[in-house]
Amino acid sequence: MVSTHPTGVQHSGSQYLPQRRSTNSNLSPNQQLLPLTARVHQQDFLEIGGCDVTTLVQRFGSPLYILDEETLRLACQQYRDTFKQYYKGNAQVLYASKAWSCLAVCAIAASEGLGIDVASGGELYTALQAGVNSDTIYLHSNNKSREELVFAVESGCTIVVDNWHELHTLVEIVEDTETRRYGDTEKLPLSGFAVAHEADRAVSPRKRVPASLPRIMLRLTPGIECHTHEYIRTGQLDSKFGFDPNQLDELFSFVSKQPALNCVGLHAHIGSQIFERQPHRDLAVVMVQWLQKAAKYGLNLTELNVGGGLGIRYTESDDPPSIEEWVKAICEVIQEACAAENLPLPKLLCEPGRSLIATACVTAYTIGASKVIPEIRTYIAVNGGMSDNPRPITYQSVYRAVVANKMSFPLTQTVTIAGKHCESGDILIKDAQLPKTEPGDILVVIGTGAYNYSMASNYNRLPRSAAVVVANGEANLILQRETYQDLIRQDCLPERLKN
Amino acid sequence: MVSTHPTGVQHSGSQYLPQRRSTNSNLSPNQQLLPLTARVHQQDFLEIGGCDVTTLVQRFGSPLYILDEETLRLACQQYRDTFKQYYKGNAQVLYASKAWSCLAVCAIAASEGLGIDVASGGELYTALQAGVNSDTIYLHSNNKSREELVFAVESGCTIVVDNWHELHTLVEIVEDTETRRYGDTEKLPLSGFAVAHEADRAVSPRKRVPASLPRIMLRLTPGIECHTHEYIRTGQLDSKFGFDPNQLDELFSFVSKQPALNCVGLHAHIGSQIFERQPHRDLAVVMVQWLQKAAKYGLNLTELNVGGGLGIRYTESDDPPSIEEWVKAICEVIQEACAAENLPLPKLLCEPGRSLIATACVTAYTIGASKVIPEIRTYIAVNGGMSDNPRPITYQSVYRAVVANKMSFPLTQTVTIAGKHCESGDILIKDAQLPKTEPGDILVVIGTGAYNYSMASNYNRLPRSAAVVVANGEANLILQRETYQDLIRQDCLPERLKN
Repeated sequence: MVSTHPTGVQHSGSQYLPQRRSTNSNLSPNQQLLPLTARVHQQDFLEIGGCDVTTLVQRFGSPLYILDEETLRLACQQYRDTFKQYYKGNAQVLYASKAWSCLAVCAIAASEGLGIDVASGGELYTALQAGVNSDTIYLHSNNKSREELVFAVESGCTIVVDNWHELHTLVEIVEDTETRRYGDTEKLPLSGFAVAHEADRAVSPRKRVPASLPRIMLRLTPGIECHTHEYIRTGQLDSKFGFDPNQLDELFSFVSKQPALNCVGLHAHIGSQIFERQPHRDLAVVMVQWLQKAAKYGLNLTELNVGGGLGIRYTESDDPPSIEEWVKAICEVIQEACAAENLPLPKLLCEPGRSLIATACVTAYTIGASKVIPEIRTYIAVNGGMSDNPRPITYQSVYRAVVANKMSFPLTQTVTIAGKHCESGDILIKDAQLPKTEPGDILVVIGTGAYNYSMASNYNRLPRSAAVVVANGEANLILQRETYQDLIRQDCLPERLKN
Repeated sequence: MVSTHPTGVQHSGSQYLPQRRSTNSNLSPNQQLLPLTARVHQQDFLEIGGCDVTTLVQRFGSPLYILDEETLRLACQQYRDTFKQYYKGNAQVLYASKAWSCLAVCAIAASEGLGIDVASGGELYTALQAGVNSDTIYLHSNNKSREELVFAVESGCTIVVDNWHELHTLVEIVEDTETRRYGDTEKLPLSGFAVAHEADRAVSPRKRVPASLPRIMLRLTPGIECHTHEYIRTGQLDSKFGFDPNQLDELFSFVSKQPALNCVGLHAHIGSQIFERQPHRDLAVVMVQWLQKAAKYGLNLTELNVGGGLGIRYTESDDPPSIEEWVKAICEVIQEACAAENLPLPKLLCEPGRSLIATACVTAYTIGASKVIPEIRTYIAVNGGMSDNPRPITYQSVYRAVVANKMSFPLTQTVTIAGKHCESGDILIKDAQLPKTEPGDILVVIGTGAYNYSMASNYNRLPRSAAVVVANGEANLILQRETYQDLIRQDCLPERLKN
């Protein structure tokens, strides 16, 4: 069979075009969790994006993050198109880049018409460097530094203001800017950081938008409980994020008197990896009430950002709503609430992260040592672990895995997949069902696109892994593997300590 | 009062020499957890190593790891000297560099006569770059790659062999080396990695020791339970580390027939942050029995490595044994067991990490936003969090803190110290007792030398923090703060993805 994929270049290994999962009747329940283009080719090996996974490992090494471009783009399109279908006003989907902030992922999301939600100056910097237009970037964080706020104001992105301290700091920054503008200099007050980055931004002049009136939204804590891990639940009143909704009058009164701030809307987020729909319904009702209250203070707020939080399928027993179901529910309830209150429809924003990127990526490891403890457990060790995927040790997250070079082998053993770190807790998967394995087999952990690379460390001074994006039989490096030299890049050895 | 400290250079802020904590009667119970040179100078500010902490933050920024050289050196000396005092044979203390692997810390430990325990090729590379002699370096890991084993063999360090796969791989590597040596080339078989690092090692020729017979130890699982966090408990039979002690006969028989390996001793480690002494006593008895069994197979093993695991005081209620008590107990029981069995005393090794470095370091943060939720909680946010200290979110670790510029202020509030990450679980300390604070105050979290920088991430693309070593009023940078540019150093943006 001859390869017929469009690019041809760098096509290595498999000779088959990607297909939809639905046509792959040979995928087992675990394998159904793989990215959409996953299929098993005739050599019984796993292929993603038209690329043979074992060949990718030979070429790029392991551990290797493999991002399936089609799965990511399709999820972006599903969010975007479902809003178009069900929402009668304007809508804007923002990719929550904290899930995986890197140039390539930001660029793909932006090319699908998504904006970018950033949670720090570093994520803002990354989005700008990826060529994302700052008028589709929204900056979060419960504790933005003054330098980050100055950077945000200068970039022209929208700032989601979290608390009083930030609000006051922002007013100071803008007033300082205004003073200088109409005072003895025309130059914007650049922080030390901003000066250092002038050169970078000069490369992309369209992003250099000195905004004398920063565009802000106000983040509020909705007081809505939902069922998810304590660490990623944010909607309850006891949260470090957002203004207390009991202070709405004081807040709207203050903001309405600030000519220095262009307040365009409200934001709330109730948590992450949520499977229920009711909390988001409740959120929509509450937010429309807030809009009404703001209007009483003369604040014409035209944007509502309902955050993210849609869960995904990490295992075959997970049953989250689909992207379509989630978006449709949000659209309906916002429209109902606005109609009931006779309010014009706001521009509707949401911030999916995990549900866009998690299932689009797998991590390929090489299997090394194993240890059989009779009547207790079998450990199989891979050449990565808690440094490239800290979710199991941090959140007790459950993952599934397949062996890329033994896709149809019977699952004859229950094993514990251990990482290579010098730590007992460095276990990636407990009780994984695998075929008989041997050193050199390629283990593929599924659903690693979110909060894996973004939380990666150099624990035990392991160089951070490479990542490739795959599509139509082509694989492109999007993150270079770190070297040993990279590990000591921060290091300085004072002269007096040299042995 | 005039400064009389020896260096004078870069002395900024305080005008007082460091003193022992015992003479600082003005330190409260929390403050007693600080490094040994901590004192409160007359402006009521915290000083460490003769350096005013607020001045360090002005100069080096925050978050800032501040390492007190004297506390680290004293802990090294206590280990070393207590072995000299109580052990009648040879002893070698190894710093478990996974706690904090960087050039400066390795160099300080080595200059105090300690060897280095490394857990990966990256940690081995770091120790060698710090100028540590490879004959005092011991390589661990449950899943060393072939490349790491080749690197270790070439470096001349001792390899602590963990499992059968590794043992077989090592035999293959050495046999391959021997073949080449006496075959058509004199050159050692350098892996791709090793070739890339030739230039580095050429700088320190004394470390280039082609070892045709790699020096190895065997790691065994002792089957000893102890009370510590599940994640850092390694002694029980159900562990990914070490050979099963039920396979001792098979193991010793195999090793005794390998002319390619120079097996010098045995290793076991029962876990970390342990406060009891009995598990280490039990371990010593078991290990001496193993030595006897090895002798039956003609293996003359002369070294015993009892691992590490001594706990430290993270809070005023923690009560671990002192370094002296722990070492004395180990020495006594090994000597008793050897005397009872009429065995010569082995060279005794141990691998402290946390108990050497944890209390020597604090992290200084700048306080930013706060949020008072009436009758629920007060959040105070700092400019770092789970990226520079992942222990609270990963292990539910408890820390104490002080405010460096308000050392004598009454502790009038109970607050939750939140990080700045976009994650509810990013809480550094729950229910911290602090004086009234305001933005710009410097919060100092105590006991952050172990598993903080070594596990640090760039989550939310926060640049990793700087670190300084302080001594006698002088502060030297040992880790440079990362920049935004550093954050995208791994990134590649394929041409076709450019927007």
